[in-house]
Amino acid sequence: MNDSSPPDPPARTIRHYWEDFEVGRVREYGRVEVTREAVLDFAARFDPQPFHLDDAAAARSLFGRLAASGWHTAAMAMRMMCDGYLLESASLGSPGVEKLVWPAPVFPGDVLTMRSTVLESRPSASRPEIGLVRNRSEVLNQHGQVVLSMEGVGFFRKRDAGPPPS
Amino acid sequence: MNDSSPPDPPARTIRHYWEDFEVGRVREYGRVEVTREAVLDFAARFDPQPFHLDDAAAARSLFGRLAASGWHTAAMAMRMMCDGYLLESASLGSPGVEKLVWPAPVFPGDVLTMRSTVLESRPSASRPEIGLVRNRSEVLNQHGQVVLSMEGVGFFRKRDAGPPPS
Repeated sequence: MNDSSPPDPPARTIRHYWEDFEVGRVREYGRVEVTREAVLDFAARFDPQPFHLDDAAAARSLFGRLAASGWHTAAMAMRMMCDGYLLESASLGSPGVEKLVWPAPVFPGDVLTMRSTVLESRPSASRPEIGLVRNRSEVLNQHGQVVLSMEGVGFFRKRDAGPPPS
Repeated sequence: MNDSSPPDPPARTIRHYWEDFEVGRVREYGRVEVTREAVLDFAARFDPQPFHLDDAAAARSLFGRLAASGWHTAAMAMRMMCDGYLLESASLGSPGVEKLVWPAPVFPGDVLTMRSTVLESRPSASRPEIGLVRNRSEVLNQHGQVVLSMEGVGFFRKRDAGPPPS
């Protein structure tokens, strides 16, 4: 590890293994207040389209006013998933997501929460210590509107495989 | 506009309208050097899983060493798309993407480029001044490996509809 490494993250207790993602289970969790500063900062770094950076351009766009980049919403969703359960799970990462949609804009001042539903669960064909979980994860705003929905696959260790080696 | 607004982005000439996204057309563009600092910064904000933040944890993970969040790779792709053509296009935003996959990890030190292929183009059924374009966009590393692939839909104004009103 070199000097630019941040301090080690605090050790987390692993509570959620593959077996804990039963099909049909719904989790509601998370809360992010979307600030104007965060919307502008993300857009300036990663998505400098005028409707994400400039009030006047946004007013002329399909969004009607300054709206967060959809990738910013996805990143906020990932943070809520991490804090909501992933950091206390035996997660091994994700190969991808399907059906990522942004049905409504996210505006500064919105308050976002998450709802995740387990759609499918199966053991890995090639790795006996691993299982796959397919979740629909939705981001909702303070009006209950879905502003992002996606179906993601995650790899998790099985409970009897124990925590990752340390 | 209030005091927290950044300066107006420089006016861009609109060169690319819906008609310019012919099916089969391939665009290669963009270049991002992935720094360790950027990987850690994005992970700390949005995806603080240990394999994105900590060398020792990453060495024990499926990635083998510190790897960028897949959402960071998506955000870098968005930036390359903006700089490559979107900011000079009559883009109106995107309703979503399909088949977002991360077939190989992105490591600090990697140099990423983009390849976008037009898969489908059709006029909007409801808005005569607008057309839809479906692109496969791929992020490649310096070894030519695809590290992200997705199929995204974009809305664009038609040429005869002219630039957005100002």
